[in-house]
Amino acid sequence: MTDDVYDRQGFGKETGMGARPALLLIDFVNGFADPEMLGGGNIAQAIAASRPLLHFARSSNWPVAHSRITFAADGADKNPFCAKVPALAALTASNPARQVVDALAPAAGELVVDKTVPSAFFGTALTQWLISRGVDSVVVAGCTTSGCVRASVVDAMSWGFRVTVAKDCVGDRAKAPHEANLFDMEQKYADVVPFSAIAKQFGRA
Amino acid sequence: MTDDVYDRQGFGKETGMGARPALLLIDFVNGFADPEMLGGGNIAQAIAASRPLLHFARSSNWPVAHSRITFAADGADKNPFCAKVPALAALTASNPARQVVDALAPAAGELVVDKTVPSAFFGTALTQWLISRGVDSVVVAGCTTSGCVRASVVDAMSWGFRVTVAKDCVGDRAKAPHEANLFDMEQKYADVVPFSAIAKQFGRA
Amino acid sequence: MTDDVYDRQGFGKETGMGARPALLLIDFVNGFADPEMLGGGNIAQAIAASRPLLHFARSSNWPVAHSRITFAADGADKNPFCAKVPALAALTASNPARQVVDALAPAAGELVVDKTVPSAFFGTALTQWLISRGVDSVVVAGCTTSGCVRASVVDAMSWGFRVTVAKDCVGDRAKAPHEANLFDMEQKYADVVPFSAIAKQFGRA
Amino acid sequence: MTDDVYDRQGFGKETGMGARPALLLIDFVNGFADPEMLGGGNIAQAIAASRPLLHFARSSNWPVAHSRITFAADGADKNPFCAKVPALAALTASNPARQVVDALAPAAGELVVDKTVPSAFFGTALTQWLISRGVDSVVVAGCTTSGCVRASVVDAMSWGFRVTVAKDCVGDRAKAPHEANLFDMEQKYADVVPFSAIAKQFGRA
Repeated sequence: MTDDVYDRQGFGKETGMGARPALLLIDFVNGFADPEMLGGGNIAQAIAASRPLLHFARSSNWPVAHSRITFAADGADKNPFCAKVPALAALTASNPARQVVDALAPAAGELVVDKTVPSAFFGTALTQWLISRGVDSVVVAGCTTSGCVRASVVDAMSWGFRVTVAKDCVGDRAKAPHEANLFDMEQKYADVVPFSAIAKQFGRA
Repeated sequence: MTDDVYDRQGFGKETGMGARPALLLIDFVNGFADPEMLGGGNIAQAIAASRPLLHFARSSNWPVAHSRITFAADGADKNPFCAKVPALAALTASNPARQVVDALAPAAGELVVDKTVPSAFFGTALTQWLISRGVDSVVVAGCTTSGCVRASVVDAMSWGFRVTVAKDCVGDRAKAPHEANLFDMEQKYADVVPFSAIAKQFGRA
Repeated sequence: MTDDVYDRQGFGKETGMGARPALLLIDFVNGFADPEMLGGGNIAQAIAASRPLLHFARSSNWPVAHSRITFAADGADKNPFCAKVPALAALTASNPARQVVDALAPAAGELVVDKTVPSAFFGTALTQWLISRGVDSVVVAGCTTSGCVRASVVDAMSWGFRVTVAKDCVGDRAKAPHEANLFDMEQKYADVVPFSAIAKQFGRA
Repeated sequence: MTDDVYDRQGFGKETGMGARPALLLIDFVNGFADPEMLGGGNIAQAIAASRPLLHFARSSNWPVAHSRITFAADGADKNPFCAKVPALAALTASNPARQVVDALAPAAGELVVDKTVPSAFFGTALTQWLISRGVDSVVVAGCTTSGCVRASVVDAMSWGFRVTVAKDCVGDRAKAPHEANLFDMEQKYADVVPFSAIAKQFGRA
């Protein structure tokens, strides 16, 4: 029934990828991988599924960027986000919870973006980095689907990049928000396809 | 069950409003009010419920800003958003569908923000306008909950404003995305309360 | 003597243009062309010199964007810029002074950016427009050299675009600020060359 | 003669400070203090003059932010700025040259902004930090006057803050660009006054 009105009004057209993609890995850090901290749900599966995606991007010489939440240890940059979700303020530079998971650790030359808000583009140098590398589209993986991934996808599209969400490579602590946000993104902001379809499009399935 | 993990991890704290609020009315335009175009669902109710909210803000001397989608008639600014949702490209300056509904028409001195993306803050002068008016928090009404409202709320919070969503004054073309996005916003980005609670907080219930 | 320290510290390297340039015409409006209003100096010459540049860009199918200052007639968007320079507030939508000069009038499909600040990138959709058109570098003409041109050049470079200032196509109301800002831009932000050199680089001198 | 046209056209009005100022210290790092590296001119005097300003701001409980250029050691974030000025790329996290000078070292709770471009506002969380602290105006000190100070002042004003440049607390490696940029800023973007006048305005001369 929900789909009916979206179909009738012409939402959800496919936009396809560009010729010069980058890979964005959103907030795949230890604290979001750990169900005892801020993780849970299908995040572990998304991390596992992102390994071949990262390998594919690297072997294709795509620019790769990683984002993570990092707050100052002295509380200098507390903001409304950590007022809503106080546990975020513990993600300081020295806390292993804010490090990217080992399975997807950044390599030399990859950008690591520290942020204090949901979107990897907001208050960071990510947009200018993508421009200076000639990128025209982004593939997004990460967590959580309903949080930092959604916010980053909306911004990526708003900045003028074509966006593809790697459906099996995004995860969330709870199933219902995961599904609801995949729906919103597919209808309005991005193509949502499995990694296998991305690999196939670039002739290397 | 979804709520369980959010509770356990400490999401959804109340942040309260500030001392110098502004009202943001997001995309309450004819085209989104009309179920035959891009509207439907509970958007008509949200427009009706926003009349006393707008009256309250004006009589409280809050800054008031309205946003609307506007694309160039010659196609000069087509972007990935209207690639996903082609109907948006018809919202040009001369199209009555992109005008704010009469019931909530902008008054002299209120800001009208034209945009080509979901968030009213993105690629517009809204943030600088709020800063120059000394605003510390925003109350958000508008449509759709799962689209331009959600994107604007995430940006408002990311810019450092405390955000309150007027729950009865936001609407969407379909019920499930409306509910899912109210949940996300309340857990992570904003307080979500009815207009009556906002009026009460400012001593004028 | 000034140049000595810049040379010794390694400023002013040439960066060259990219493969997918755009042309930015900054604030070439009637009010800045008129010495009785906000114009004077060598602005008239810069407008004349920009005609072949604009023709070259159009015949090369470069994206072309024009910027202009536009304030709301009801004073809704007054800001610190028009507090410093009150004459700017008169540049409202219905004022011919804020229109692009006839000699360089925007053609269909070219972007026209309205702004209330010096930089054409600030609080506007220009960056996202350049990204969605795959641009990697910009050629800048306009006025004034020490004002909106300088601010736009700093932002263009900061966004990650390689920047070339068309030296004979920028003008200012007074000679000393014109020269001082050409110096700053050449040392730190952009290549500064005459239009003839730009045409030659693209094989069409 | 230059002043004539500016006077006649109504530039350079005083805007005054707001009620909730912050202090911005721009790029006062060892590498810009050292004439053998990127320093020289009157930068040493500006650092000395900024000590009482910083003391004043702290004892007034103003928010204080420091900016510095920081590039990744692996070259991941090279950009057009370090293409124009290659020496900047050496300012990496482990290089003492990019540390704030001891005389003005950041205290706990003060924001330290890392950036790869001239303006402290560009691609950083500075704007959102100022908003969340309720700031309505900024006092700017730092170096260089013709580079990162100028760019930060233009952005601060564009964001809607009233801006005061502490004239004796900004410095540059060469005298002519220092003077030219003080002129531009005073005419168009900021009040330019000595620290003593700032202290007097807040009743503590």
